[in-house]
Amino acid sequence: MGRRLGDVSAPARLAGPDEGIGPDELALAARNHGLPLEALRHDVTPPGLHYVLVHYDIPYVPDDTAWRLTVGGLVRRALHFDLAGLRALPRVTTRVTLECAGNGRALLAPRPVSQPWLVEAVGTADWTGVPLRLLLAEAGVGPGAVDVVCTGADHGVERGVEQDYQRALPVAVATGDDPEVLVAYAMNGAPLPPQHGHPLRLVVPGWYGMAHVKWLRDITVSAQPFTGFQQAVAYRLRQHPGDEGEPVTRIAPRALLVPPGFPDFMSRTRVVRPGPVPLEGRAWSGRAPVTAVEVTTDGGASWHPADLDPADGHRWAWRRWHRTWTATPGDHVLAARATDAEGHTQPPDQNWNRGGFANNAIQRVPVVCVSSHDTG
Amino acid sequence: MGRRLGDVSAPARLAGPDEGIGPDELALAARNHGLPLEALRHDVTPPGLHYVLVHYDIPYVPDDTAWRLTVGGLVRRALHFDLAGLRALPRVTTRVTLECAGNGRALLAPRPVSQPWLVEAVGTADWTGVPLRLLLAEAGVGPGAVDVVCTGADHGVERGVEQDYQRALPVAVATGDDPEVLVAYAMNGAPLPPQHGHPLRLVVPGWYGMAHVKWLRDITVSAQPFTGFQQAVAYRLRQHPGDEGEPVTRIAPRALLVPPGFPDFMSRTRVVRPGPVPLEGRAWSGRAPVTAVEVTTDGGASWHPADLDPADGHRWAWRRWHRTWTATPGDHVLAARATDAEGHTQPPDQNWNRGGFANNAIQRVPVVCVSSHDTG
Repeated sequence: MGRRLGDVSAPARLAGPDEGIGPDELALAARNHGLPLEALRHDVTPPGLHYVLVHYDIPYVPDDTAWRLTVGGLVRRALHFDLAGLRALPRVTTRVTLECAGNGRALLAPRPVSQPWLVEAVGTADWTGVPLRLLLAEAGVGPGAVDVVCTGADHGVERGVEQDYQRALPVAVATGDDPEVLVAYAMNGAPLPPQHGHPLRLVVPGWYGMAHVKWLRDITVSAQPFTGFQQAVAYRLRQHPGDEGEPVTRIAPRALLVPPGFPDFMSRTRVVRPGPVPLEGRAWSGRAPVTAVEVTTDGGASWHPADLDPADGHRWAWRRWHRTWTATPGDHVLAARATDAEGHTQPPDQNWNRGGFANNAIQRVPVVCVSSHDTG
Repeated sequence: MGRRLGDVSAPARLAGPDEGIGPDELALAARNHGLPLEALRHDVTPPGLHYVLVHYDIPYVPDDTAWRLTVGGLVRRALHFDLAGLRALPRVTTRVTLECAGNGRALLAPRPVSQPWLVEAVGTADWTGVPLRLLLAEAGVGPGAVDVVCTGADHGVERGVEQDYQRALPVAVATGDDPEVLVAYAMNGAPLPPQHGHPLRLVVPGWYGMAHVKWLRDITVSAQPFTGFQQAVAYRLRQHPGDEGEPVTRIAPRALLVPPGFPDFMSRTRVVRPGPVPLEGRAWSGRAPVTAVEVTTDGGASWHPADLDPADGHRWAWRRWHRTWTATPGDHVLAARATDAEGHTQPPDQNWNRGGFANNAIQRVPVVCVSSHDTG
C-alpha cells in the first residue's frame, strides 16, 4: 500500500569498480540491440540490423489510420494531420546515419548504469517524410518562439518521473534546412517498423538518436526553453551530479572496422590467416563531413591513411573506407580513427561523463593470426 | 607467434555465485536480441522484432543469384539448386513459433556463460519454402541412411573447434511431414533478412532454433550418426561435463505475459493503476498443442484459467490467451503457465543443465500498483 513511483525508479548511479553488468542492464541489452559489426558492409542497413533503443514500451499501433499529428502552441493556426494528409505534402528522402548518444557507455570506467552499449549502436537508413520546416511554415511560428517540443506516444517512468517521451529542438534547427529535419513515415522505402517509430518519427540528420522522437504525435512551439526530463535531466554532459551540464546534440566523429576474419563464438576474438587481409569499415560525423580515416594494426604505435570511397552526395550518411593489411602470425590490435572537416577527431582514451554520452574513443579490435597448421 | 585456436577459444564454464554478466556475454547480448515482450501482441512478429541468435558472423550475400544448395551423400543422384530452381518447386507457407534453446539461461543459478537470454528469445513468422522431404525424395535417399546433415555458410571457432555451422536431423524427421521441414526462402512474404539466413534456411517446426540451420548451402545424407560439434558437444542436456547427455530437440511449453501497464526505464518494473487491467500473452509448445494457460496474480498462491483464443489452424504457432485482473495498490507478482495436450507443463523452478538449455521455468513479472495521487 502507498507505493510511489519513486520506490520503483531509482536515481542514476555509477557501477562499482568490479561490478559486472547487472540484471537491469541485461534486461535492456536483451530488448535493445546494436548493429552486428559485419553489417557495416551494407551502405544502407537492412531491416532488423539497425540499432534500436526504446526508453519505455514500443506502442502497439495495428491500425495507423486513426493516428493524428498535431502542430500547435505559439503558432498562427494549429494544424491536425492524418497520415494521408502528410503523405500528400512534399516529400524528401535523406540517407542518415543515426547513432545512440549512449554508444560506448559500457566501455567507460566507471560505467554509468544504463543501456550498456559497446560500440555498435549505429545504423544507416533512407528516411522519407515531410520537412518539419514546411509544417511549421504552414502553421506560422509566432514571434518569440524558442523551442519546438516534440512528444511521442511512448509512456513510462524514469528516475522517478512519469512521462511521455519528449524532446525539444531550438526553433532555428526545427525551421532550418541544414540539416533539414524530417517528420518521417518511411524507412528504406517501407512504412516505419514498430520499433523505429511506426507510424511517424522525427529524423534530425547529424544529431544523436535522442532527438529523433519516435511515435510522434504532437509538435508544440514554445516561447520558453523546454525543461522536460529528457532535455534538462537526461542527455546532458556532466562530471558531477549537481552540474548543469552541456546538452548532448550532434554526433561526434567515429570510425568502425568490420571485424576481419572469423570470430570465436564466446570471446568474439577475431581469427585471421597470415597474408593479405582486406580491412574496411565506415566513418561518420554529425558535425562536418569525414575527411580522413587512419588505421593502425599495431595498437596505435603507427597510423596509416585508409582510402575513402568517393563522396556520393549523402552528406548525413557514413562513408566507407578500406585498406589492406598483411597479417603475420601472432596477436595484433587493430583500430581506425575518423577526422572531420572541422578538425574533430577521436580520442585514444574515454570521454567520460556521468551519463555515458558521446564516448567516441577509438574502437580496438584484437585479432589473432593463426597459421593454418596451428589449428589444434 | 605460434598461437593456436585453442588459445582464443576457451572451454565452457559456469559463472561464479556473485559474478555479473561479463564482457563476453555482453558482446553477445549487444549483437543478438530478443523479442521486446510488448511485441507478443502481434500474431506474426514484425521484421526486426523476432529474436536473433547468430553463432559467428552473418554472411554477406549482396547478390543471391550465385547461391547454390547441394543435396548429396547417400542418395541415388546428387542435386544442385539455385534460388530460381527452388522457387519453381511446390511451395508451402507455415506459421512457426521459433525459440532459442538457450532461452532462460541467464536466470539459471549457477549461470552457464554463453548468450545471456532472460525469457525473450522467441518470435513467430510465416515461413515459405520447399518441403525438405520433396528434395530428398527427388534425390532418392539410399538404404541405411541415418542422419541428414545440414551445413550453413557461417564460419567460426567455438570451444577450440573451427567449423561451419552444421546440424543433423534424423532421416525420419527430415523426410517426414509432421512436422514438415522446410527449406525456406521467405519470411513474412519477403526474402529472408540477412540475420535470418538470407537466402536460404531450414525451418523445423516445433524444434528449438539450433535445428533451423541458416545460410543453408549443403544437405548431405549420411549412413553414420552425425558427431559434429553442434550435435555431439553443444546442445545436449548435461549435469556434469563428462555426461553424454540427451540431445536438445523439441520446444518445451512456455507462456509469456505482455508486461502490463508501463515500465520504469532502468529496472523495467511495471506500473499499473488500481482497477481492471487486461492481461494477455502467448503460449506455445513444440511437443503438442497448448491446451491450457493458467494465470496467477499473487506470486503463485492461486492459479486461475485464462481464456485461449480459438485454434486458428496454425498448429506450430503460439496461441493468444487473456484474462482481466483487478489491480489493488501495492506489490504483486504475476505469472502464467502453459500446459500442452501431452500433459507437459512448466516448472516453478529452474530446469538446470550445464548448457542452460530448455529452461522453461515460469516467467515472473513484478508489478507495482500505484494510486494516481501517489506519483511523487
